[in-house]
Order: sequence, then C-alpha cells, then structure tokens
Amino acid sequence: MKNFTSVKDVSDIKYLINKGLEFKKNPLKNAYQGKNKTLCMLFMNPSLRTRLSTQKAAYNLGMNVININLNSDSWKLEMEDGTIMNFDTQEHIKDAIKVISTYCDIISIRSFPELKNRSIDGEDKILKSFLKYADIPVISLESNTLHPLQSLTDMMILTEMKTIRKPKVVLTWAPHPKAVPQVVANSFAEWTNEMDVDFVITHPKGFELDEQFMHNATIEYNQDKALENADFVYVKSWTSTENYGQVSDLHSDWTITKEKMKLTDNAYVMHCLPVRRNVEVTDEVLDHPSSLIYHQVKLREFAAQAVLSEILTNGNN
Amino acid sequence: MKNFTSVKDVSDIKYLINKGLEFKKNPLKNAYQGKNKTLCMLFMNPSLRTRLSTQKAAYNLGMNVININLNSDSWKLEMEDGTIMNFDTQEHIKDAIKVISTYCDIISIRSFPELKNRSIDGEDKILKSFLKYADIPVISLESNTLHPLQSLTDMMILTEMKTIRKPKVVLTWAPHPKAVPQVVANSFAEWTNEMDVDFVITHPKGFELDEQFMHNATIEYNQDKALENADFVYVKSWTSTENYGQVSDLHSDWTITKEKMKLTDNAYVMHCLPVRRNVEVTDEVLDHPSSLIYHQVKLREFAAQAVLSEILTNGNN
Amino acid sequence: MKNFTSVKDVSDIKYLINKGLEFKKNPLKNAYQGKNKTLCMLFMNPSLRTRLSTQKAAYNLGMNVININLNSDSWKLEMEDGTIMNFDTQEHIKDAIKVISTYCDIISIRSFPELKNRSIDGEDKILKSFLKYADIPVISLESNTLHPLQSLTDMMILTEMKTIRKPKVVLTWAPHPKAVPQVVANSFAEWTNEMDVDFVITHPKGFELDEQFMHNATIEYNQDKALENADFVYVKSWTSTENYGQVSDLHSDWTITKEKMKLTDNAYVMHCLPVRRNVEVTDEVLDHPSSLIYHQVKLREFAAQAVLSEILTNGNN
Repeated sequence: MKNFTSVKDVSDIKYLINKGLEFKKNPLKNAYQGKNKTLCMLFMNPSLRTRLSTQKAAYNLGMNVININLNSDSWKLEMEDGTIMNFDTQEHIKDAIKVISTYCDIISIRSFPELKNRSIDGEDKILKSFLKYADIPVISLESNTLHPLQSLTDMMILTEMKTIRKPKVVLTWAPHPKAVPQVVANSFAEWTNEMDVDFVITHPKGFELDEQFMHNATIEYNQDKALENADFVYVKSWTSTENYGQVSDLHSDWTITKEKMKLTDNAYVMHCLPVRRNVEVTDEVLDHPSSLIYHQVKLREFAAQAVLSEILTNGNN
Repeated sequence: MKNFTSVKDVSDIKYLINKGLEFKKNPLKNAYQGKNKTLCMLFMNPSLRTRLSTQKAAYNLGMNVININLNSDSWKLEMEDGTIMNFDTQEHIKDAIKVISTYCDIISIRSFPELKNRSIDGEDKILKSFLKYADIPVISLESNTLHPLQSLTDMMILTEMKTIRKPKVVLTWAPHPKAVPQVVANSFAEWTNEMDVDFVITHPKGFELDEQFMHNATIEYNQDKALENADFVYVKSWTSTENYGQVSDLHSDWTITKEKMKLTDNAYVMHCLPVRRNVEVTDEVLDHPSSLIYHQVKLREFAAQAVLSEILTNGNN
Repeated sequence: MKNFTSVKDVSDIKYLINKGLEFKKNPLKNAYQGKNKTLCMLFMNPSLRTRLSTQKAAYNLGMNVININLNSDSWKLEMEDGTIMNFDTQEHIKDAIKVISTYCDIISIRSFPELKNRSIDGEDKILKSFLKYADIPVISLESNTLHPLQSLTDMMILTEMKTIRKPKVVLTWAPHPKAVPQVVANSFAEWTNEMDVDFVITHPKGFELDEQFMHNATIEYNQDKALENADFVYVKSWTSTENYGQVSDLHSDWTITKEKMKLTDNAYVMHCLPVRRNVEVTDEVLDHPSSLIYHQVKLREFAAQAVLSEILTNGNN
C-alpha cells in the first residue's frame, strides 16, 4: 500500500481489518517500526478523534509527529497552476507539499468540502494535489469526498461484532440543524459494498448519495421498512443532494429513537461522532448498551495504526 | 492518588511536597516511568508556565504529550445533559471526554471562569464534567475555582525556604487593571491551611475569598498591619466579591513596594505570574534577591512531575 | 557557539557548513546528542519550512520539542522596561523569557518586522530581549533584521554546487504584490560577504539594503548587466527603502524569466520560498532542472541540525 485515500488503495481489505484487530490486542507489538520516521498531520478544519487517534497510533509505532494547522500556522495556499500570484495567496500548494514531503516520511491531510457546489467538492482538489506533488505516501484524514480511516474502523467493527454470517447493515440518513458533508456516508457505502453483508441505504428523496459508491446497495426510501430486521444501524446526517449545501426541512421523523430501534433485530447502533444528540439519535439510544459509538472511537486508533504500519512496511517500495 | 484537582485529592501532602523536591534534585530519576503513556493537555485559554512546565514534567518521565486547544483545534462543546442539540454546539462534552479518555492515559484540562456570576463559576462545570465522564485520571491545570499545581509549587517553596519552625505567611490582594479570577488566591488558602504556618489574608473590604477555603486563616483588612513581621508575602490580585467580575477602583495604595516590604521581617516575595509590574508589585521588589518569582517558575515543573508520577504509580488502581 | 542570530556568532563558517553537509549524508549520526534536552520554538507569525525543518533537525538529534504560537497560545507581551502595566499587555517579556528559559535547553524565536519604520525594525527588539533575558542559548528562526538559518543553508548550497573556484553570485530584487521584509536579502549579503565569491547585488534605485551588511558587494542598478555570466542567481523581493513598507510600482520588468537567465552562465536559480510564482520568477525558471529551490528546502534541515548540534556541544560552556 502506497497511499491510503479510498478502499481502492487497499489490495486486501480482510488482511488490513485483521491487522487493525491485532493491534487492538497488542498496541505495542511493533513499537519500534516507526523509529526515526516522521508523520506530518495537516489540518484545514477542526478535528478531535482523528487528531488524537492518528497521533496515538503513530506513537504506538514509535514515530515522531508534527502537527500543522494549515492556514493559521502556515501560509495561504494557491491552488491553480500557472497563476500569476499577484493577489492574496502566499504560497503555491505544490511548493508547500514539496516542503512537507522533504522533511517527513508520511503526510496526512484533513480537508473539508465547501458545500457550495457538489461537483467542485467531488473533484477533491486538495487531496489530489497532495497525491500529485508529494514524494511520500499520503493518508487522507478525511477529504472532500471520503473518510477512509473512519470506514476501515467501521469495517473492523462489523467484522468483530457480527453474530451471523451475513448481517443486515442499514445506513440511515438523520436530521441535522446544519448542512453537513456526504463524505462519511459515501465512504461507508464504498467500503461496505466490499463486505459480505446485506446492505441497505435509507434516506428521504433528494438526498441520494454518489452513485459511484452505491453499486451493490439497496436504496429504500421508507426508513421503517429499511430498519426491519437490521443487525447494524449506521446513523449519519448529510446534506441534501437536490439542494446541495442548504439546510433542509428537518425531517424530524427520521431521528433514530428507541421506538425505531424496535423494528430491528436488536441491532447495534453506530455513529462516527460528533453526533447531534436528540436530533440525529436520542440519548437513550446512544447511551444504550447496544450502542457502539465509543467502541468505534477506540478502534479508530488501531485502524490508523494498521494503515501507518502497512505504509511503513510497503509504502516506499 | 486518582485525580489531582484540589488539596482534598492528596492523602499525604508532605509526601507529595518531598517527592517534588526530590525531582528537583534529579529530574530524570524516573525517566522511564511514563514510557508509552500519553498525557493529553487541553487548553481553553492562554497558558505559558502551565503549558511548558507540565509538558516538560511529562517528558522527564518519558511520556508522550498531545496538546489540544479546545474550541479552536476541536469542536464547540455542549455542556447541558439532555439538550436537543439543534443549535450552535457541535459535540456534547461527555462524548468529547470519552474520546480523549480513549486514547490517553492521563487527561489534564485548563478552563477559565467567565467572571460574570460567582456562583456559576463556583460550580466548576467543565472540570466536574471531566471528573464525571473521564475513565482516566484527571489533572486540573487551573479550573474555575482552584489552581492546585500552582499551590503545590508554593507549598514546596514554603517548605524549602522557611528558616523558622512556624513562619508567618501573608496573602495580600493587589491592584490590577482588569478583573481577574479568585482562583489562585482561593487555592493558595486551601493548601496553606494544611501547613504549619501562621496564615494571614489581607484585602480591602468587599474582596472576601470563598469561605470554604479560609478556615484557619486570619483576615486582616489593614494591609500594613498584616505585613508586620511577615516571613513570606504572597501577592495576587483578584476580582471584587461584592462587584464580581467588575474592575474596581484601583486601590493603588495596595501595590507592594519597597516601603511596604520594610514592615516585614525581610520577607520573601512570591507571585504566581504573569504579574502586572508596577501595578501589583513594583519592579524593585520583583527583581530584588528576596523575590522568589522565578524560583516558583522552576518548581512548577517538579510539582507537575510529582503529580504525574504519583498518578502513574497509583492512578489506575 | 553560544547563540545563533547572525554570521557574527559563528567563529568558523566553513566548519559549520561542512558540519551541515555531513548531517546531510547521515542525519542520524548524532541521534542521541540531544536526549532529554528540550528545544522551545516560539512563533509570532506563520512558518512552514522553518517550523518543520527545525523540528525535524531536533528530532534527528533526539531532542524534545515544544512549540508555542506566541500571542495566541500565550499572553500579550509588554516590551518596555519600567512600564506601569496598567493597560493591554499581560506579561512582561522578561518574565516570559525567564519562564521559557527555565524549562528548556535551547530557545528559538521567530519574529516579523512591522514594516512601518525601518529604524525601529532595525532595532530587532524582540530578538534583543531574548538575548538579554534568556539564561540559555538563543537561535533566531528569522528576526526583524536577519534570517541566519536560511543564509547558512544558502552557503551550504554555494559550497556544494559551485563548479569553479570563485563563482559569480548575483542577488537580484524581484517584484511582489506586497511589501515584504528586507531580512532575507540582508542576511544573504551578510553571509555571502564571508565567502570566496564574486558578489553582485542588483535592485532598482530606492531599494538599497542595509549598508552594514553590504561591504564587499558590488551594487549594480542594471539587472541585465548584473546577470551577465552569473553562476548563481538568488532571487528575492524586498520592500522599498525610500518608501519603506509601502507597495511599490511593480517593476514587472524585473521578474526573472527564461530570457533573463540566458544572460547568465547557465546559472543555478535560488529562492528561499515562499515564492510568488510568475511575479518574482516564472514557473518555467522555478521548475527548470537548474532551479535549486527544493534543494534549499532540503538543506534547511541540516543547517538547523548543525546549529543545534554545535550549541548542544558548546553552548553551555
């Protein structure tokens, strides 16, 4: 594995999932693999889980970590090639990336879609620039289109917690007071489609996810019907596709409640956090023993560690 | 010791003071105690001494350190339980704390009182939330009510520098152009009351400190009388209690000057810094050989190290 | 070497250059020299190269690093001695520096000139305060007057890349949409004057650099004439001296282009970055094989490492 930005970068998903689950058992088993190697973590927006879990994973491998809050610690970046840089941007992204590549061994970057124009967000310009100009492996800490570290974590959970051979996994849209990215939902779909599960996605009309990631999934507009006999319910809000980036009518009947959960087969509830409590999901569901939200938090560390370890092993071949 | 948020968390104060003074002699005596352990330091307001001294103390023990500036690096936190999170806050504090607890071994938090309502500040909601939700030991890096790392430092100084069995220790209010918290003064009182000293507190009327921390202290409204024969003079401004959070008439006659110091028994001067020079205390007093202000700075490192070491030893029992 | 703030701090420049070039060959040759030593890096403005390269250099030597963004992580600093601190500043710089000196072994500071008054910038007050009050060695990460880590890097490049005994080195002014400091240009001149080269500086009238750093250099106002037979062309914009801090008429004919480079003897192009592409230098020159801009980036790490290593060896004698 050279880079880690999508499920497409992973040649053997099961192997990577199992590598993560092994680190869960023994976080320090490769405590010297990253000695004298440096991970650079670049953030263009707030992050708590990703910041902490990835840094901890790097420490577990003995790596050094350098954090940069791009745009505040550093300079304003020019994105376009060939520009006469006579205005506000202070450094071309290709120069900034060359600089970071020079001093570090692995580069990781967190960007955030503007939520103004879906096709522009879909181009994922920041991440693409890193893949184009970096001379070292690139890890996405969430891009404008996908969140592969979260999805690998979620696949580790499905693998670990399933009690039947082919569980029913339901990804359900949920209400939110703000327009939030489609990134986690698309990414969950991209990865879940590689798993041996019965995969159903449910959302109101007008909230269709990106078709390129949906292929094997059943789309069901009736949430109650979708939830029937579910083994896992993955809750996530995302912005409308029809009115992209706009806050929609809240669809408050889509909130996941104790009553809704009764339709399932005692399903586990998952959410990547941060969660709007009592808007996306009620407290009693989130704090119920069948909630896996904090277990997802825990496994983020070992997903990141598996990815870092794989890249340290193979990334420079 | 599980947590460190008040003198009440300490079962044997003398032992902890001596542990700190031993680290002063040999900072690297437990250089591997914290190997593969991670300290998370969370800041909700600026910090220089605390940030540096605690991080250095952790390094002395071989720990990893992760710094987070809450509210800028991370998400806006919801403090109330059961809220329908339909507004501005992005993550519930209980979820954020669970996340941090997951990846780290010790959590430390610096908050700052709003200085609008004394009883609300007195509830110390942020720190209480950490104590309620964290699964790991919690260290206060200064809360809305107390600053135990500073006070432990100050007790180490009293222990180390006293030349008579029972010295006279005077805590005096001082002028300041802004309303500043009562935190350091309350905390100094809480700890000094556990020491074998003659303890006098002096301040203008209307600046009374929190009664729960005052018990053995003599309150003297006449500053000159209070300073008589003092062995240690601890200077600190704090906001009025009567007009809480408001800037008061400056009481400029309360500034500690060379003339005021002549009333004492060649007392040492202490201040926790940052100090408003020539407002709280004059330059000639702060920069005089009997000033302990930089010695206090130095011992902050070893106070933090004693606390971290104790928690590493006993915190998870 | 006690401090590193100017070429004047270096007793043997060739030795330091060679030390840097040796670290380039083997970055980990002194991997334990800095064990249990702490470098504090203080930033008063954005930094990417300096932040990353210096931190990496410290890691190569096994040091701990503490980063502080002054003025946001910490308190507003009072610069004047004897002030009655009754206004906006919260901590006197001498107290802040004593604090940092206490916990760290080497202090490094990046400041930025205000570009309002040339003689005030020339006083370099921030750096001078650190030299006055710090009890530990001080490294300039770029001050209001000089950028010695960049210049040492550039001297390493001249040493490594020159193909004739005494190459012609041309420092040329370039256009820029903003007024930018004269710091890098002055510093390059200060160091280049110590090298065995034919040194020419070219700029429009009114952009004269600081005379104290110019001594051996030839000043040539005709850029084309200056570039003739050059072996190295060092490009950098700086603010007008006549209209200090103001954006000048762009002098767009001073942009370094492929045509301009034809006047040289196949010269290498250097720029310290960040560069305004197609304003200071065109893309085709910056991205040409004779461009050394990324090589300069690489050697910044080893320049910093040579300086840190020298100070660790000799700084506390």
